[in-house]
Amino acid sequence: MVAINCDMGEAYSIYRCGDDEGIFPHITVANVACGFHASDPVVMRKTVKLAKEHAVKVGAHPSFPDREGFGRREMKMSRDEITASVMYQVGALSAFLKEAGMELNHIKAHGALYGLASRDEEVARAVADAADVFGVPLMGIPNTVHEQVWGQRKAGFLAEYYTDLDYRDDGSLIITREHVAYDPDEAAKAAIRAVTENVATSVNGKEIPMRADCVCVHSDTPGAVDLAKAVHEALKPYLT
Amino acid sequence: MVAINCDMGEAYSIYRCGDDEGIFPHITVANVACGFHASDPVVMRKTVKLAKEHAVKVGAHPSFPDREGFGRREMKMSRDEITASVMYQVGALSAFLKEAGMELNHIKAHGALYGLASRDEEVARAVADAADVFGVPLMGIPNTVHEQVWGQRKAGFLAEYYTDLDYRDDGSLIITREHVAYDPDEAAKAAIRAVTENVATSVNGKEIPMRADCVCVHSDTPGAVDLAKAVHEALKPYLT
Amino acid sequence: MVAINCDMGEAYSIYRCGDDEGIFPHITVANVACGFHASDPVVMRKTVKLAKEHAVKVGAHPSFPDREGFGRREMKMSRDEITASVMYQVGALSAFLKEAGMELNHIKAHGALYGLASRDEEVARAVADAADVFGVPLMGIPNTVHEQVWGQRKAGFLAEYYTDLDYRDDGSLIITREHVAYDPDEAAKAAIRAVTENVATSVNGKEIPMRADCVCVHSDTPGAVDLAKAVHEALKPYLT
Amino acid sequence: MVAINCDMGEAYSIYRCGDDEGIFPHITVANVACGFHASDPVVMRKTVKLAKEHAVKVGAHPSFPDREGFGRREMKMSRDEITASVMYQVGALSAFLKEAGMELNHIKAHGALYGLASRDEEVARAVADAADVFGVPLMGIPNTVHEQVWGQRKAGFLAEYYTDLDYRDDGSLIITREHVAYDPDEAAKAAIRAVTENVATSVNGKEIPMRADCVCVHSDTPGAVDLAKAVHEALKPYLT
Repeated sequence: MVAINCDMGEAYSIYRCGDDEGIFPHITVANVACGFHASDPVVMRKTVKLAKEHAVKVGAHPSFPDREGFGRREMKMSRDEITASVMYQVGALSAFLKEAGMELNHIKAHGALYGLASRDEEVARAVADAADVFGVPLMGIPNTVHEQVWGQRKAGFLAEYYTDLDYRDDGSLIITREHVAYDPDEAAKAAIRAVTENVATSVNGKEIPMRADCVCVHSDTPGAVDLAKAVHEALKPYLT
Repeated sequence: MVAINCDMGEAYSIYRCGDDEGIFPHITVANVACGFHASDPVVMRKTVKLAKEHAVKVGAHPSFPDREGFGRREMKMSRDEITASVMYQVGALSAFLKEAGMELNHIKAHGALYGLASRDEEVARAVADAADVFGVPLMGIPNTVHEQVWGQRKAGFLAEYYTDLDYRDDGSLIITREHVAYDPDEAAKAAIRAVTENVATSVNGKEIPMRADCVCVHSDTPGAVDLAKAVHEALKPYLT
Repeated sequence: MVAINCDMGEAYSIYRCGDDEGIFPHITVANVACGFHASDPVVMRKTVKLAKEHAVKVGAHPSFPDREGFGRREMKMSRDEITASVMYQVGALSAFLKEAGMELNHIKAHGALYGLASRDEEVARAVADAADVFGVPLMGIPNTVHEQVWGQRKAGFLAEYYTDLDYRDDGSLIITREHVAYDPDEAAKAAIRAVTENVATSVNGKEIPMRADCVCVHSDTPGAVDLAKAVHEALKPYLT
Repeated sequence: MVAINCDMGEAYSIYRCGDDEGIFPHITVANVACGFHASDPVVMRKTVKLAKEHAVKVGAHPSFPDREGFGRREMKMSRDEITASVMYQVGALSAFLKEAGMELNHIKAHGALYGLASRDEEVARAVADAADVFGVPLMGIPNTVHEQVWGQRKAGFLAEYYTDLDYRDDGSLIITREHVAYDPDEAAKAAIRAVTENVATSVNGKEIPMRADCVCVHSDTPGAVDLAKAVHEALKPYLT
């Protein structure tokens, strides 16, 4: 059983980002931006409403407080600062869930906070402390500090497989600033394999173990909607 | 029966504002800043903890998004923008209440948003729509659009009497940027009179009707702690 | 003799806005965003470099400090606050001009600041005080407070004609949030007429007097590049 | 010949920080905050005017874009991002200098940007590239990457000695978040020794070489004004 998740609601002010309307029909879980790397209150409210209309579950997608850098620049914040910052963002999102009569599904850290938490236990714990307040699981990369720290929390860990990104031979994810187009059929096949066999193929063709509680697609890649559609079709038998 | 409320948690970054530690023992309800005119996640978390330690109830104190102007500059936002903005801030605060095991008590708009909502029905409705999501009453000035619009909402209206500000003959409040020192004994007497007789005295000595569900003191006036203490002592028999 | 101007450099963070590369070949003057409604230091530096490559003059395009509202929401700032805010933004832009060896050409206020200054003398004076520091003219709408206040300053006033917006019978401009597509040929004809005959046609077909020191085109309308190209071709004999 | 410098203009919005009025009579050079870690346009304008009244030279004090963290949290920005960010801030300050008829004296990076540039050549170069645009020297810690990188730039390097902070035996500076009170007489003696003998004493009593083109005092330490006064009196014979 698997979920398909996507970062959503990353518009801001007059600016658009990704084809949310096109993607929503093809995912089961949305990671919704909380205003620190993208989004604003109006966009958040609209995104939660859209999620509800498509019966898509909503998780929070908190970030370092760095809108100018889209949350992609590491910041040396203390553990307390990170926990309070994540709590603030998740709380803000929860107002819109309350209005929509929805429950918070999970938390997925964004950008540099996500990346740093996959390597730095202190950062991972800071984020987990915030998630514990809400009693929800954290979504992250298997075989990293994500799984190691978050897997020990009561609400558990959701391993995600990136069907439109590459992996190194050691199983680590190659995170890129510019997302390139990915072949929808290849992505769909890789997604099925990760879900049914728990295996992925590295950028060098090596087989690597891959736990996949959810499959992540992007909304801002060229051809994003087609890829999401193909992955969605392929995973239909396995969706939660 | 009456509450004593005060705007709290208006520090930010390295900056202090008001003697929160000194004031908390003398109030029963705190209006806690939500990060848009003052405060940040670390300050909010600390303020909620302090409130809990002093058994002080917590309301949200949302503002126009204008930290540079301390929320004191009117902004022409649409009704939807205001509602979403207030929801965002109140939601953010609710994360810290959740951690502390506390319930949100009320919402009190800050600065220019408070002032504008006392005159403009559309703005008052925008704020009320946000309060309705949380099912809590709004705190405001009696005999204004505050009471007129907010009094019709299910969760009700909390009229507040400002014991350290002046009123005009028509009952309207003289809101000042710079708060001046007020005599604690005078303030205490005025507070008792407002609470027991529902009467206040204008700046010209005229008696004006004054509903007082709560009495507001400030934390950043010269002599603020002494004034709060005197008001607290005087109102002890009437506190909820 | 006339200039063709366009608001440029309104991208921000990862967000794009308008086809600057496509527009630059067809204008002679750029109003460059300064980071308060749009843009950031990296975008500003890149925009100034692009302007230099296309031999386009650069003016500053300062705004109310309201990135979330793209500078389109009026803010009640004091005269001193506005002057200091505009000085800050223009100064920031001047750093990139200094690097490029370029002079500041003019200042054009953005959005709500532009609109408010066309009606409110105090706001118009606040902006003019900042322009006086840099000794450059202000660009604005003829027959409004813009011309009345800014026309009296030493550095003078640049009247601009909007070839892709409509005018009312009284000569006032209909400013819209969503820009619609405009026919390039019609726009080109209207531009020539404004420049050579100082006449425009209102939305009701009435002839209105129109001083046109410069013709303004937009970069984010559908078909913006084609329109700019047509206006540029038509005005070539009259360009400064 | 030596200058006495101090970080000034770190107020923001309604918040105060340090006794600028008290300090200005006792320094010869001010490092003025540029709005990214502290200050805003109104505060900057006022600070530059105060500096002029006291015949104090003005340098820019740019920071990482992190007001919430007062610029004390390291951010992983690219070299281009840092250069553009510093240019923006220095340009903004230059608007107020232009109005006051003053020249920019130098640039001193703030907080985490200052600290990182003392250890990381790429960051030091990024800041220097911005300084080169303005043709002014950079102020920093001798015997670090500051001197190594900035000393090679045309406009040169200004070594500063911190008379109210401690040094390790290896000559490195112990930067603290909370500044403690320092004895004015001790500070004055240490300042004279650094200036006349180019020697400082480490926290363990060891003598360390200390180039001192300027002596830095703080405005927000307990007893800051007394210390600045004592250092000023002591250094009078050596002031530029």
